[in-house]
Amino acid sequence: MNKYIASVPLEKAFRLINHGATTLVSSRYGGIDNVMAAAWVCGLDYDPPKLTFVLDSQNKTRQLVEKSGMFAVQIPTLSQLELTHWLGTHSLYDDPQKLEHSGVELFSIEGFDVPLVCDCAAWLVCKVIPEPHNEQAYDLFIGEIIGAWADTRIFRNGHWQFENADASWRSLHYIAGGHFYTIGDAFDAKSE
Amino acid sequence: MNKYIASVPLEKAFRLINHGATTLVSSRYGGIDNVMAAAWVCGLDYDPPKLTFVLDSQNKTRQLVEKSGMFAVQIPTLSQLELTHWLGTHSLYDDPQKLEHSGVELFSIEGFDVPLVCDCAAWLVCKVIPEPHNEQAYDLFIGEIIGAWADTRIFRNGHWQFENADASWRSLHYIAGGHFYTIGDAFDAKSE
Repeated sequence: MNKYIASVPLEKAFRLINHGATTLVSSRYGGIDNVMAAAWVCGLDYDPPKLTFVLDSQNKTRQLVEKSGMFAVQIPTLSQLELTHWLGTHSLYDDPQKLEHSGVELFSIEGFDVPLVCDCAAWLVCKVIPEPHNEQAYDLFIGEIIGAWADTRIFRNGHWQFENADASWRSLHYIAGGHFYTIGDAFDAKSE
Repeated sequence: MNKYIASVPLEKAFRLINHGATTLVSSRYGGIDNVMAAAWVCGLDYDPPKLTFVLDSQNKTRQLVEKSGMFAVQIPTLSQLELTHWLGTHSLYDDPQKLEHSGVELFSIEGFDVPLVCDCAAWLVCKVIPEPHNEQAYDLFIGEIIGAWADTRIFRNGHWQFENADASWRSLHYIAGGHFYTIGDAFDAKSE
């Protein structure tokens, strides 16, 4: 594992997704790995930490997550803009070699049987809390965050370091039609 | 109504929240208005447009939303950093004059009985789709977006204009402890 990757305490895991970045979601089942882009991932609870993830049934990831009960949410950076968009606009259903064609590199963390995307800013491994009505009526999945890690060059001591790192590390925030924003400047509120 | 406020087609309403900005959520019931800050608001569907909103029972807003079945999600700007943090750290339960003390200014749009916060970048009026299990087990509310508006100085023709407007218009993305980021630079993916 990359020497810069460090575990994030689960009670601080929400900070990795609280600013609303677009994510990459990876999954594995029956020897098949996949990675998709997802903007609709959101914090749900602090303790135990949970998140919501909207996962349409048109995505192959849906099948893998339903069968494995696991997925990983990753925070890609500006360096991964093209990769993120490519993974979000190509389906494993249409291209069984999607991952090879995307150029994505994967790694694993011991004890968690889910593929992780190299060079992201952060990784959250989630276990599905089954809620069949939400999944069927809304494509809405709830995940408990059971492991969290970040690259210490951009998140350390519980804090994002966007203001202290190269702009290539900034998180991506998708709108539509291939148009993204990166996260911007830092501000601290003075009011108590 | 401010001459810059224009209706946004409902099929494009998701673009107002897709980049994961921290929001202000307003509500009204029985002559009581309230406004809170909420980072855990997220797109759920395009057509009809829906969003999710995590609303803890410690918030007075929970009571108002449960009784009225409505709420409004707003996108505050950097100009409203202190207001947003103040509204997010003070409760109407502790201070019945919270809104007066916050200095927030409200307005209304005809046909929608919910208070709206002046000077935001965008407004989405939502009707609760009742899901008692989600609300009780997860504090998770689902809203159908029944009206959407934006300030044309920062969102027009279906597109955010962050890259073309003064930095004071940028959306806020909360982490924790009074620490925010604004949205940053624009990038277009080249890949199809």
